[in-house]
Amino acid sequence: MIIILKSEVSEEQIGHVIERVEALGLKAHLSRGTYRTIIGVIGDEQKISAQPLLAIPGVQDVIPVLPPYKLASREAHPQPSIVEVAGVRIGGGHLAMIAGPCAVEERERMDAIGSAVKEAGANLLRGGAFKPRTSPYAFQGMGEEGLKLLRETGDKFGLPVVTEVMDPRFVEMVERYADMIQIGARNMQNFSLLTEVGRCQKPVLLKRGMSATVEDLLMSAEYILSQGNSAVVLCERGVKSFDKATRNLYDVGSVALVKLLSHLPIIVDPSHATGRPDLIPSCALAGIAAGADGVHIEVHDCPERAKSDGPQALLPRQYAEVVGQIRKLAELFGKSISAPRRA
Amino acid sequence: MIIILKSEVSEEQIGHVIERVEALGLKAHLSRGTYRTIIGVIGDEQKISAQPLLAIPGVQDVIPVLPPYKLASREAHPQPSIVEVAGVRIGGGHLAMIAGPCAVEERERMDAIGSAVKEAGANLLRGGAFKPRTSPYAFQGMGEEGLKLLRETGDKFGLPVVTEVMDPRFVEMVERYADMIQIGARNMQNFSLLTEVGRCQKPVLLKRGMSATVEDLLMSAEYILSQGNSAVVLCERGVKSFDKATRNLYDVGSVALVKLLSHLPIIVDPSHATGRPDLIPSCALAGIAAGADGVHIEVHDCPERAKSDGPQALLPRQYAEVVGQIRKLAELFGKSISAPRRA
Amino acid sequence: MIIILKSEVSEEQIGHVIERVEALGLKAHLSRGTYRTIIGVIGDEQKISAQPLLAIPGVQDVIPVLPPYKLASREAHPQPSIVEVAGVRIGGGHLAMIAGPCAVEERERMDAIGSAVKEAGANLLRGGAFKPRTSPYAFQGMGEEGLKLLRETGDKFGLPVVTEVMDPRFVEMVERYADMIQIGARNMQNFSLLTEVGRCQKPVLLKRGMSATVEDLLMSAEYILSQGNSAVVLCERGVKSFDKATRNLYDVGSVALVKLLSHLPIIVDPSHATGRPDLIPSCALAGIAAGADGVHIEVHDCPERAKSDGPQALLPRQYAEVVGQIRKLAELFGKSISAPRRA
Amino acid sequence: MIIILKSEVSEEQIGHVIERVEALGLKAHLSRGTYRTIIGVIGDEQKISAQPLLAIPGVQDVIPVLPPYKLASREAHPQPSIVEVAGVRIGGGHLAMIAGPCAVEERERMDAIGSAVKEAGANLLRGGAFKPRTSPYAFQGMGEEGLKLLRETGDKFGLPVVTEVMDPRFVEMVERYADMIQIGARNMQNFSLLTEVGRCQKPVLLKRGMSATVEDLLMSAEYILSQGNSAVVLCERGVKSFDKATRNLYDVGSVALVKLLSHLPIIVDPSHATGRPDLIPSCALAGIAAGADGVHIEVHDCPERAKSDGPQALLPRQYAEVVGQIRKLAELFGKSISAPRRA
Repeated sequence: MIIILKSEVSEEQIGHVIERVEALGLKAHLSRGTYRTIIGVIGDEQKISAQPLLAIPGVQDVIPVLPPYKLASREAHPQPSIVEVAGVRIGGGHLAMIAGPCAVEERERMDAIGSAVKEAGANLLRGGAFKPRTSPYAFQGMGEEGLKLLRETGDKFGLPVVTEVMDPRFVEMVERYADMIQIGARNMQNFSLLTEVGRCQKPVLLKRGMSATVEDLLMSAEYILSQGNSAVVLCERGVKSFDKATRNLYDVGSVALVKLLSHLPIIVDPSHATGRPDLIPSCALAGIAAGADGVHIEVHDCPERAKSDGPQALLPRQYAEVVGQIRKLAELFGKSISAPRRA
Repeated sequence: MIIILKSEVSEEQIGHVIERVEALGLKAHLSRGTYRTIIGVIGDEQKISAQPLLAIPGVQDVIPVLPPYKLASREAHPQPSIVEVAGVRIGGGHLAMIAGPCAVEERERMDAIGSAVKEAGANLLRGGAFKPRTSPYAFQGMGEEGLKLLRETGDKFGLPVVTEVMDPRFVEMVERYADMIQIGARNMQNFSLLTEVGRCQKPVLLKRGMSATVEDLLMSAEYILSQGNSAVVLCERGVKSFDKATRNLYDVGSVALVKLLSHLPIIVDPSHATGRPDLIPSCALAGIAAGADGVHIEVHDCPERAKSDGPQALLPRQYAEVVGQIRKLAELFGKSISAPRRA
Repeated sequence: MIIILKSEVSEEQIGHVIERVEALGLKAHLSRGTYRTIIGVIGDEQKISAQPLLAIPGVQDVIPVLPPYKLASREAHPQPSIVEVAGVRIGGGHLAMIAGPCAVEERERMDAIGSAVKEAGANLLRGGAFKPRTSPYAFQGMGEEGLKLLRETGDKFGLPVVTEVMDPRFVEMVERYADMIQIGARNMQNFSLLTEVGRCQKPVLLKRGMSATVEDLLMSAEYILSQGNSAVVLCERGVKSFDKATRNLYDVGSVALVKLLSHLPIIVDPSHATGRPDLIPSCALAGIAAGADGVHIEVHDCPERAKSDGPQALLPRQYAEVVGQIRKLAELFGKSISAPRRA
Repeated sequence: MIIILKSEVSEEQIGHVIERVEALGLKAHLSRGTYRTIIGVIGDEQKISAQPLLAIPGVQDVIPVLPPYKLASREAHPQPSIVEVAGVRIGGGHLAMIAGPCAVEERERMDAIGSAVKEAGANLLRGGAFKPRTSPYAFQGMGEEGLKLLRETGDKFGLPVVTEVMDPRFVEMVERYADMIQIGARNMQNFSLLTEVGRCQKPVLLKRGMSATVEDLLMSAEYILSQGNSAVVLCERGVKSFDKATRNLYDVGSVALVKLLSHLPIIVDPSHATGRPDLIPSCALAGIAAGADGVHIEVHDCPERAKSDGPQALLPRQYAEVVGQIRKLAELFGKSISAPRRA
């Protein structure tokens, strides 16, 4: 921690800052420059990071030298983590191929889509039973009925299932049906929910918030990790931007950055990042080339009848083509797509 | 609703789109231009807005002509709404002066701050008992103990109290202690929580999300209104920006825009919008000048000891000065600051 | 300047960094912390700021302690500057009321608009003869013919004139006709142009770029000041945002921030900031309340016939009303609107 | 073009809008809906797009159905364009490998870097003689001396050269020395400069502005194309974002989008997009996987001595490694890296 003092700081104020630092059992190292005096704080930065030093008279700026996350950091865990979801490995050279409809729909649809994505090469089936919709008048998901259908479809086609939970009251229920629990972008900083999934036994897919920095994302992962659940997979799904030509701005650089800062796997979701089927294939490949540990794509056999986000879904044959290209890239980079245990 | 078709659309595709529109009991009005054919949809737009028309082959774009919110809209309710919080009126010419510490702290602090903001002219006391903190290692609030302390402080100084709820499981508890329930920026699209507060009997202070559009904000208000709770006050508190000189970007234009689009009151929170005490007074005045129905400011008598957000708090005497200036502006604009019922 | 070293830095690397610092005649102050070693650089920060210290092996971060601008800073010039434009004072309690059409049009229009804004209370007339248009097919302005017309209109109604220059080859020409030279948002970092207007004798109105930070804006002012032209007025005109409900996001906080960091006057332009006539009056008042030294508003007597930006122009009577309200605010804040010398 | 009228529009106003449309020789097609009346404009949209229809009383919104660029559009030119720079082909399956120092420096540096990037596999040499620097006190480039050095270095190693022009007065001079002329991000909407390079005979590398939409970028290309210069290569180099962990936000989705909308080649510049050497290799690969027609990377043999942007430069051996990986990707995608004519 470095404390930069104001140019007009008084000796008394300097003394007060040093006193506050030392009261926490830390050492203050004073350095008087030509224009500014700075204080280097020596010792455990965590102790002092919670203190409102910036509010002390005479303090101009407070600069941390360590990242605020610990369990999620690469320093704490130099090797990349591998998260296993019912036999499907994610990270450390293993790619997740997550596919399925935006929302769980009736059995016939689920059978058609589940069968198609299985055949196309997916190793995880997705589908939302609780849907976070901007409008209270839009379809909100099938609830527990949807969870059952998803589970049955996964079992039928030998695909582990991933589904979103939006409410801490339903974590237990979702955990009963799902192999992996998704935290959506809108809930990335729903700290009650993060704490709750941190206490459960299933791996978590944590999607980046629409205006969350990479540090914010890692801090949200830290919430889950600090509760004891170490099976966290991150997901880049686009951030808000001034350009409305795509639904969001696909931040592929965040994948490369997370790889440097953290040991956690990170996958990409070009469906939500772009919102346009005609951009999804290129962006999926870009994600893998940037180092992502998998790709999440929404697939529907009849997008114009989908109950949610139809316009951004790929058709099964388009998805199969993307998976084919990803396989070639994976081979080039020495990565593999593992099969589910029950396949 | 206007449907724009692709230049290469076939007659069969046009027929299919029209069929889909008419199947919903709506009328399709075809208009063939030189470069594009468009279809005007005549009838209740809500019926069709949930349909993934964009996913139909041949469709290039779908443009709604009505806003997606109804209860929150100015069209539905031409007169400005007035929300009453234990006697304090907000909206329609009445200003809310909400002040207090970021987090509820020990009784001595609460007494000192409560007394100071009351004297300075606040008509509502704020304080968080549940704090949404980016770090799992930061102070998370005093919980129910904090709610009790806030209630007692409010009662002692004759100030109704407003406090945040973060978890649907605690709405009932917060409702028992608070006069007004706050939904924080990070939870603006926590739809489970919105639904829950929509069912309660207390007025709601809904803060704008960090990257929420004004339409998103109004849609979140619609969630609450559609559950039967019509006492919603909006709050502009800054949005994410590329400039890190201030904590957020204070979007004062959103106040003017909300006034055009909606009947709901909107206040401003320059504390979170700027994160800098030296900018708060000017920004508070700017908010009132733009038409805001009140100002939310964090006040602490010893910011360097505050358990949360100390560096952005005003001192009581700074707050008193701002209130003085706001009073003059209010007079100029013919507005008033009403007193609490129990004062 | 503070240099933070990487955790794994070697003694040899530390020695190399210190050597580089001392070679510039500065002193390096080493401080070894528990997790990181930092080096405080003592002496003239400008000398070292141009050095790519971050590229030295072992360096993690380089943190300046001084702002990179000098002439524009409040430290260098504690009193607010007053810029005079043909008798009209801007800054230090004096407000500029700049109004006129987006583009200079034919004489009849200019007469009608010039007369109207004069009567409404404007003290400076604007109008573009060179228009930066996104499309090469849009009206590009009348050129020198337009400059003449603007000059004549200003003279006829006793209003000094301000107009934009986009090309360093035309600075001399624009200087001949105008009382104040405008640098538009798209050219805020056109350094050739800044250098050229820095060498001329006329005051400069420097508009903030669409994604320029406040520091970027002050650095661009520094370009002009460093060439010897000290008559610079800044202008907030909105920045890019994720919300398309308004043309730009009106950053009224930047006004308050500039007042802290710099002595230069700053005005607001709610016309470009919002792009919506129905929001301009509220936003103009908010700007003045935030401390702005004036307001720039586009006015047209027949917006639907305007050759550029008609939809965002106020009608003369709407403008007169805004000026009336600004006068009341000005009085409240003890500010005045000075009259042109030749009025 | 579609004109949406306000709900309270009068018959007289509708008549007036129709009259305005027909006066331009276009046909107005009226469609009365349940909530809104809309007017479809049939005929050449360009004629009407310059008209301020939104300013007509009763008009709520004006929606174009065609993109505002013509020459740059894929519709106008369905096959991808190939731009040739002294024998090096860019686009249509041919990749540009542009490398070199940020700024042209002394001969010894240029020789070392030129030789290194040639050997590593670059086919174009870059280097700035005119540098757009945020600070007036920073190194501004060597000017014509730099152009000569760049030319000589290119000739020595058989690499065509690309260099930036910032001022319309220097276009002729830069054209004499360079094989390709670069327009930097800060000048993407410097329309005088675009017009000037549109008149010259050399290919242009047009970098995307820091907050330019893809449509803005294509409109700037249209400026150049409309002057007669059809050899335009676009460049994605990152946009402004709320996350400061990287210099800019690398928008790889824009590459895929440009491929859909336009026939022009587009390359990526991960050096400026990320500002971090440790992210450049991954992001370069992601760009190629997304469909980019080349990669622009800054290379320096001694970054800590570089006169500009040293911290973001790759070392020659790092660059050689990236080129090796790009070659493998290129092979997978059936693309090639062509050699310069004079090599």
